[in-house]
Amino acid sequence: MTVNIYDDLNKLEATFRKTAEFLEVQQAVEEVKVDDDALALFKNFRKIQLSLQEKQMQGEEPVAEELEYAQKTAQLAQQNPKIMKMLEAEMKLSGLIEEVNRVLMKPVQQLYESI
Amino acid sequence: MTVNIYDDLNKLEATFRKTAEFLEVQQAVEEVKVDDDALALFKNFRKIQLSLQEKQMQGEEPVAEELEYAQKTAQLAQQNPKIMKMLEAEMKLSGLIEEVNRVLMKPVQQLYESI
Ligand SMILES: [Ca+2]
Ligand SMILES: [Ca+2]
Repeated sequence: MTVNIYDDLNKLEATFRKTAEFLEVQQAVEEVKVDDDALALFKNFRKIQLSLQEKQMQGEEPVAEELEYAQKTAQLAQQNPKIMKMLEAEMKLSGLIEEVNRVLMKPVQQLYESI
Repeated sequence: MTVNIYDDLNKLEATFRKTAEFLEVQQAVEEVKVDDDALALFKNFRKIQLSLQEKQMQGEEPVAEELEYAQKTAQLAQQNPKIMKMLEAEMKLSGLIEEVNRVLMKPVQQLYESI
Protein backbone atom coordinates (compact mmCIF):
# COMPACT_ATOMS: atom_id res chain seq x y z
CA MET A 1 0.00 0.00 0.00
CA THR A 2 1.31 3.42 -0.91
CA VAL A 3 0.04 6.48 0.88
CA ASN A 4 0.62 10.10 0.19
CA ILE A 5 1.16 12.44 3.05
CA TYR A 6 -0.30 15.58 1.50
CA ASP A 7 -3.72 15.33 3.14
CA ASP A 8 -2.12 15.09 6.58
CA LEU A 9 0.48 17.71 5.70
CA ASN A 10 -2.15 20.20 4.54
CA LYS A 11 -4.10 19.60 7.73
CA LEU A 12 -0.96 20.16 9.78
CA GLU A 13 -0.24 23.37 7.90
CA ALA A 14 -3.76 24.68 8.52
CA THR A 15 -3.39 23.98 12.23
CA PHE A 16 0.14 25.43 12.24
CA ARG A 17 -1.33 28.75 11.04
CA LYS A 18 -3.60 28.76 14.09
CA THR A 19 -0.96 28.03 16.72
CA ALA A 20 -0.18 30.65 19.35
CA GLU A 21 3.37 30.71 17.94
CA PHE A 22 2.27 31.55 14.40
CA LEU A 23 -0.32 34.10 15.52
CA GLU A 24 2.33 35.79 17.63
CA VAL A 25 4.63 36.25 14.63
CA GLN A 26 1.67 37.50 12.58
CA GLN A 27 0.76 40.02 15.29
CA ALA A 28 4.40 41.14 15.68
CA VAL A 29 4.74 41.61 11.91
CA GLU A 30 1.62 43.78 11.89
CA GLU A 31 3.01 45.89 14.71
CA VAL A 32 6.23 46.46 12.79
CA LYS A 33 4.29 47.37 9.64
CA VAL A 34 2.34 50.16 11.32
CA ASP A 35 5.38 51.67 13.08
CA ASP A 36 7.30 53.97 10.74
CA ASP A 37 10.56 53.71 12.68
CA ALA A 38 10.49 49.94 13.10
CA LEU A 39 9.43 49.50 9.48
CA ALA A 40 12.27 51.66 8.13
CA LEU A 41 14.86 49.97 10.36
CA PHE A 42 13.72 46.50 9.40
CA LYS A 43 13.55 47.23 5.67
CA ASN A 44 17.03 48.74 5.77
CA PHE A 45 18.38 45.78 7.76
CA ARG A 46 16.84 43.31 5.31
CA LYS A 47 18.05 45.22 2.25
CA ILE A 48 21.64 45.11 3.48
CA GLN A 49 21.46 41.43 4.46
CA LEU A 50 20.15 40.58 0.98
CA SER A 51 22.84 42.62 -0.74
CA LEU A 52 25.55 40.89 1.33
CA GLN A 53 24.05 37.48 0.51
CA GLU A 54 24.01 38.34 -3.19
CA LYS A 55 27.66 39.30 -3.11
CA GLN A 56 28.52 36.10 -1.26
CA MET A 57 26.72 34.00 -3.87
CA GLN A 58 28.64 35.75 -6.63
CA GLY A 59 31.88 34.97 -4.80
CA GLU A 60 32.60 38.65 -4.10
CA GLU A 61 34.18 39.76 -0.83
CA PRO A 62 32.30 42.55 0.95
CA VAL A 63 34.55 45.47 1.83
CA ALA A 64 35.16 46.37 5.48
CA GLU A 65 32.91 49.45 5.25
CA GLU A 66 29.97 47.36 4.07
CA LEU A 67 30.43 44.87 6.89
CA GLU A 68 30.60 47.67 9.41
CA TYR A 69 27.43 49.24 8.00
CA ALA A 70 25.67 45.85 8.02
CA GLN A 71 26.63 45.34 11.66
CA LYS A 72 25.41 48.83 12.54
CA THR A 73 22.01 48.35 10.86
CA ALA A 74 21.61 44.95 12.54
CA GLN A 75 22.38 46.55 15.90
CA LEU A 76 19.92 49.39 15.33
CA ALA A 77 17.20 46.97 14.24
CA GLN A 78 17.74 44.79 17.31
CA GLN A 79 17.50 47.80 19.59
CA ASN A 80 13.97 48.42 18.33
CA PRO A 81 11.51 46.67 20.68
CA LYS A 82 8.97 45.89 17.94
CA ILE A 83 11.57 44.31 15.69
CA MET A 84 13.03 42.44 18.65
CA LYS A 85 9.59 41.11 19.57
CA MET A 86 9.10 39.96 15.98
CA LEU A 87 12.47 38.19 15.82
CA GLU A 88 11.87 36.50 19.17
CA ALA A 89 8.44 35.32 18.02
CA GLU A 90 10.02 34.01 14.83
CA MET A 91 12.57 32.05 16.86
CA LYS A 92 9.82 30.45 18.93
CA LEU A 93 7.98 29.52 15.74
CA SER A 94 11.17 28.00 14.33
CA GLY A 95 11.28 25.85 17.46
CA LEU A 96 7.88 24.45 16.50
CA ILE A 97 9.12 23.58 13.00
CA GLU A 98 12.18 21.94 14.55
CA GLU A 99 9.84 19.85 16.70
CA VAL A 100 8.05 18.67 13.54
CA ASN A 101 11.45 17.69 12.13
CA ARG A 102 12.41 15.82 15.29
CA VAL A 103 9.15 13.85 15.25
CA LEU A 104 9.64 12.84 11.60
CA MET A 105 13.37 12.14 11.95
CA LYS A 106 12.88 9.85 14.94
CA PRO A 107 11.56 6.80 13.06
CA VAL A 108 14.37 7.22 10.51
CA GLN A 109 16.97 7.33 13.27
CA GLN A 110 15.43 4.25 14.83
CA LEU A 111 15.89 2.36 11.57
CA TYR A 112 19.58 3.29 11.53
CA GLU A 113 20.01 2.49 15.23
CA SER A 114 18.81 -1.02 14.45
CA ILE A 115 21.90 -1.58 12.30
CA MET B 1 -8.34 30.25 20.36
CA THR B 2 -5.16 28.30 20.88
CA VAL B 3 -4.62 25.00 19.13
CA ASN B 4 -1.91 22.46 19.56
CA ILE B 5 -0.52 20.74 16.55
CA TYR B 6 0.38 17.42 18.14
CA ASP B 7 -2.72 15.55 17.00
CA ASP B 8 -2.07 16.52 13.39
CA LEU B 9 1.66 15.97 13.79
CA ASN B 10 1.20 12.47 15.19
CA LYS B 11 -1.16 11.67 12.34
CA LEU B 12 1.39 12.96 9.83
CA GLU B 13 4.11 10.88 11.47
CA ALA B 14 1.99 7.73 11.27
CA THR B 15 1.37 8.35 7.57
CA PHE B 16 5.03 9.25 7.02
CA ARG B 17 5.97 5.75 8.26
CA LYS B 18 3.74 4.27 5.55
CA THR B 19 5.05 6.30 2.62
CA ALA B 20 6.84 4.52 -0.21
CA GLU B 21 9.91 6.61 0.68
CA PHE B 22 10.02 5.45 4.31
CA LEU B 23 9.29 1.82 3.43
CA GLU B 24 12.11 1.91 0.92
CA VAL B 25 14.62 3.01 3.55
CA GLN B 26 13.28 0.37 5.93
CA GLN B 27 13.67 -2.32 3.27
CA ALA B 28 17.16 -1.12 2.33
CA VAL B 29 18.24 -1.12 5.98
CA GLU B 30 17.01 -4.71 6.35
CA GLU B 31 18.99 -5.74 3.26
CA VAL B 32 22.15 -4.21 4.69
CA LYS B 33 21.57 -5.94 8.04
CA VAL B 34 21.42 -9.41 6.52
CA ASP B 35 24.48 -8.95 4.29
CA ASP B 36 27.70 -9.57 6.24
CA ASP B 37 29.88 -7.53 3.88
CA ALA B 38 27.56 -4.55 3.63
CA LEU B 39 26.96 -4.64 7.37
CA ALA B 40 30.67 -4.65 8.23
CA LEU B 41 31.44 -1.88 5.73
CA PHE B 42 28.62 0.29 6.99
CA LYS B 43 29.44 -0.21 10.66
CA ASN B 44 33.08 0.63 10.01
CA PHE B 45 32.13 3.71 7.98
CA ARG B 46 29.80 4.92 10.73
CA LYS B 47 32.31 4.25 13.51
CA ILE B 48 34.93 6.38 11.79
CA GLN B 49 32.49 9.18 11.00
CA LEU B 50 31.42 9.28 14.65
CA SER B 51 35.00 9.32 15.90
CA LEU B 52 35.85 12.20 13.54
CA GLN B 53 32.76 14.10 14.69
CA GLU B 54 33.73 13.59 18.32
CA LYS B 55 37.20 14.96 17.69
CA GLN B 56 35.74 17.94 15.86
CA MET B 57 33.41 18.70 18.78
CA GLN B 58 36.36 18.58 21.17
CA GLY B 59 38.23 21.02 18.93
CA GLU B 60 40.86 18.43 18.00
CA GLU B 61 42.35 18.28 14.51
CA PRO B 62 42.25 14.83 12.90
CA VAL B 63 45.65 13.75 11.61
CA ALA B 64 46.15 13.19 7.88
CA GLU B 65 46.22 9.40 8.30
CA GLU B 66 42.81 9.41 9.97
CA LEU B 67 41.32 11.55 7.21
CA GLU B 68 42.75 9.28 4.57
CA TYR B 69 41.35 6.21 6.35
CA ALA B 70 37.95 7.90 6.71
CA GLN B 71 37.91 8.70 3.00
CA LYS B 72 38.87 5.13 2.16
CA THR B 73 36.11 3.61 4.31
CA ALA B 74 33.56 6.03 2.84
CA GLN B 75 34.66 5.03 -0.64
CA LEU B 76 34.44 1.32 0.14
CA ALA B 77 31.00 1.75 1.69
CA GLN B 78 29.73 3.66 -1.33
CA GLN B 79 30.98 0.98 -3.68
CA ASN B 80 28.71 -1.53 -1.97
CA PRO B 81 25.39 -1.67 -3.87
CA LYS B 82 23.29 -2.40 -0.77
CA ILE B 83 24.75 0.52 1.16
CA MET B 84 24.42 2.75 -1.88
CA LYS B 85 20.76 1.79 -2.25
CA MET B 86 20.19 2.59 1.42
CA LEU B 87 21.87 6.00 1.18
CA GLU B 88 19.91 6.86 -1.96
CA ALA B 89 16.64 5.84 -0.30
CA GLU B 90 17.59 7.98 2.69
CA MET B 91 18.18 10.97 0.40
CA LYS B 92 14.75 10.57 -1.19
CA LEU B 93 13.18 10.38 2.27
CA SER B 94 15.04 13.55 3.29
CA GLY B 95 13.41 15.20 0.27
CA LEU B 96 10.02 14.38 1.78
CA ILE B 97 11.00 15.97 5.09
CA GLU B 98 12.26 19.03 3.21
CA GLU B 99 8.87 19.24 1.51
CA VAL B 100 7.19 19.29 4.94
CA ASN B 101 9.52 22.15 5.90
CA ARG B 102 8.74 24.06 2.71
CA VAL B 103 5.00 23.76 3.31
CA LEU B 104 5.30 25.03 6.90
CA MET B 105 7.82 27.77 6.06
CA LYS B 106 5.67 29.19 3.27
CA PRO B 107 3.08 30.98 5.46
CA VAL B 108 5.92 32.39 7.58
CA GLN B 109 7.67 33.71 4.47
CA GLN B 110 4.41 35.23 3.30
CA LEU B 111 4.13 37.17 6.54
CA TYR B 112 7.62 38.58 6.02
CA GLU B 113 6.99 39.32 2.36
CA SER B 114 4.07 41.49 3.44
CA ILE B 115 6.51 43.84 5.17
CA1 LIG C 1 6.86 55.72 15.06
CA1 LIG D 1 27.74 -11.40 2.07
